[in-house]
Amino acid sequence: MKFLQNNVCAPKGFKALGKSIGIKKSGKPDLAVISSEVLADAAAVYTSNKVKGAPLIVTKKHLGNGKAQAIVVNSGVANVCTGAKGIKDAEDVAAYTAKELGIATKNVLVASTGLIGAYLPMNRIKEGIKNAKRQLAASGDAAAAIMTTDKSRKEIAVKTANFTIGAIAKGSGMIRPNMATMLCFITTDAKMPSKKLDLFLRNSVNRSFNMISVDMDTSTSDMAIILANGLAGAADEKKFQAALDFVCIELAKKIARDGEGATKLVEVEVKNAKTDEDAKRLAKSIVSSNLVKCAIFGNDPNWGRILCAMGNSGADFQEKLVDVFFGNEAVVINGTSNGFNLRKVKEIMAGSELKITIDLKNGNKSATAYGCDMSYDYIRINAAYTT
Amino acid sequence: MKFLQNNVCAPKGFKALGKSIGIKKSGKPDLAVISSEVLADAAAVYTSNKVKGAPLIVTKKHLGNGKAQAIVVNSGVANVCTGAKGIKDAEDVAAYTAKELGIATKNVLVASTGLIGAYLPMNRIKEGIKNAKRQLAASGDAAAAIMTTDKSRKEIAVKTANFTIGAIAKGSGMIRPNMATMLCFITTDAKMPSKKLDLFLRNSVNRSFNMISVDMDTSTSDMAIILANGLAGAADEKKFQAALDFVCIELAKKIARDGEGATKLVEVEVKNAKTDEDAKRLAKSIVSSNLVKCAIFGNDPNWGRILCAMGNSGADFQEKLVDVFFGNEAVVINGTSNGFNLRKVKEIMAGSELKITIDLKNGNKSATAYGCDMSYDYIRINAAYTT
Repeated sequence: MKFLQNNVCAPKGFKALGKSIGIKKSGKPDLAVISSEVLADAAAVYTSNKVKGAPLIVTKKHLGNGKAQAIVVNSGVANVCTGAKGIKDAEDVAAYTAKELGIATKNVLVASTGLIGAYLPMNRIKEGIKNAKRQLAASGDAAAAIMTTDKSRKEIAVKTANFTIGAIAKGSGMIRPNMATMLCFITTDAKMPSKKLDLFLRNSVNRSFNMISVDMDTSTSDMAIILANGLAGAADEKKFQAALDFVCIELAKKIARDGEGATKLVEVEVKNAKTDEDAKRLAKSIVSSNLVKCAIFGNDPNWGRILCAMGNSGADFQEKLVDVFFGNEAVVINGTSNGFNLRKVKEIMAGSELKITIDLKNGNKSATAYGCDMSYDYIRINAAYTT
Repeated sequence: MKFLQNNVCAPKGFKALGKSIGIKKSGKPDLAVISSEVLADAAAVYTSNKVKGAPLIVTKKHLGNGKAQAIVVNSGVANVCTGAKGIKDAEDVAAYTAKELGIATKNVLVASTGLIGAYLPMNRIKEGIKNAKRQLAASGDAAAAIMTTDKSRKEIAVKTANFTIGAIAKGSGMIRPNMATMLCFITTDAKMPSKKLDLFLRNSVNRSFNMISVDMDTSTSDMAIILANGLAGAADEKKFQAALDFVCIELAKKIARDGEGATKLVEVEVKNAKTDEDAKRLAKSIVSSNLVKCAIFGNDPNWGRILCAMGNSGADFQEKLVDVFFGNEAVVINGTSNGFNLRKVKEIMAGSELKITIDLKNGNKSATAYGCDMSYDYIRINAAYTT
């Protein structure tokens, strides 16, 4: 597998643009367009939140035939809780973009991220989309334009076998609240019918974005979209799934590491569970626990909280068989403390990445969840005024 | 209904003691005994955490016949994740207490709260229980002895009709971690068979302790016990349930208000839901959301987060019918902002109690959940070293 530059533009036949159109007061980029030179097979997964943003509703409708050619995204305003006007606005954004690109409106997908409850500034967006076709480039900086207050760009591109996959994502922002939305846009030149794409995307999302937790609040705008334009020809399905898994997991880790107030990336692997579902539930419960996250921030190997979070997960395991490791150091053997070397464990915890391994010795299934610690900055960011 | 002093000692025939036996380094009280002069009907509810402390296992066994006469509680060490030795220790604590009080071991219930993973200091406890019978008093301060690092005693006693109910509880501690356990001990002189007691206790717990959230981590030691010694004769069942509800809800609010790092009590009422279950899920989801809690700490009427938490609850509601009130001020009407007076709403939020009301306009069921805001102190407390 080879790493490439230019994220979503790395696969053959894709271009993008990222520009500032004045939705964000900061003047930072806030409009992105990703476009394929030919109609692509496409698939998407959406938030499980019952309250769904207008862009998700429009995108789902446009994706009804499994085809798409472009994605238009704005940051700054999420277009959520905006009623019928919100839907109309999202439709209009797709229509403007389609007109500029010379394609059908139903082949344009839309996404928005930012403040909930505000309407899109339609004049700015219409103005911004003008001449989009000429502004599309092989190095268009869409990754920056979908950031809200993420500290870092989240982008990747890999080539394996005959095909390339590129992707960008955004995670939990900082400073301005109501921004905790996750978006991911993936492009590939592999040829893959939309039904297969849908299956592979779901598999990858379950192993990546569905295994991260920054603060347990699932946003109203979460969405991951993949476009496969087929320009590189048919791809080996196993290789495609593996590459897509890799891309999604790398982006998921970037999102977790850049979680609101995070000072470190936390990876929790649960091994030797009876079922996949048990392993997943346990890993997610540990990585989501406020008490575990605070202890990790304080470099405190407070293993009782890990056992407590496991007990709350609803998963099956035998307490008296559980081993817990921080890095390579055991802190719990057979459900209770092994009298570990505190200084050594604290040193391991002080790094910028912490791997916690739970061995259940109760089966052969495993799962890994990704998250971050919880610091004073999490409170500072989220207590700030919307106003 | 009349308020009385002396919490669990207020009902006829109950005495208690609270003393320091040196489990806590601070020298604060850490051993409590509550005793009835006659054998009482009894019932208990336990944590839903799969990892259960040894005292819960022993108490459940001793309560097999629905009878008990005394409860012995220590704070400082939780006796959780302590294997077979933990069970033996809890049995021994019951046996020592039974011997001193001249009653059967199976009529003594045990509870512990404090650090997970440490063994009980059995010598200190044995020494501390000596002469317990003589130390029992009508004003014995059990409420102080079950505190870990709670900032305030949680106690209540009420007389209504012919009977009295008294109770003490502890909530989330401060400064030392691993203390986030909830315990509640209730006494009454009403005559009530244990099966009825069990039913009434479950009803009250569902309306009170099961409706609070400080940090979403259900402890391994949570337990609520009620003893009914019958000395006041038979009680009207409706009046008994109402009084027990009142006592449990008052204690639940005290626990929420004293949550780790809390600066205010938050009460969320969901009205006009289709089902009780929907109302409960929605109220609990809102009061549990980190993002909502941080916004409340910052006096920020960030209603988008409330809608987001509702959407994540799994409950049924119609977004476009939802009204949201902070105090008496509407901030959302029919699912979107009503352009509220920001200064007025911020003033309401700045108080020490915040009532949020959600009107679903979708049925006639309601539920109320209790919680607190989330401040810098939550992080400070929980990032501190166990060591």
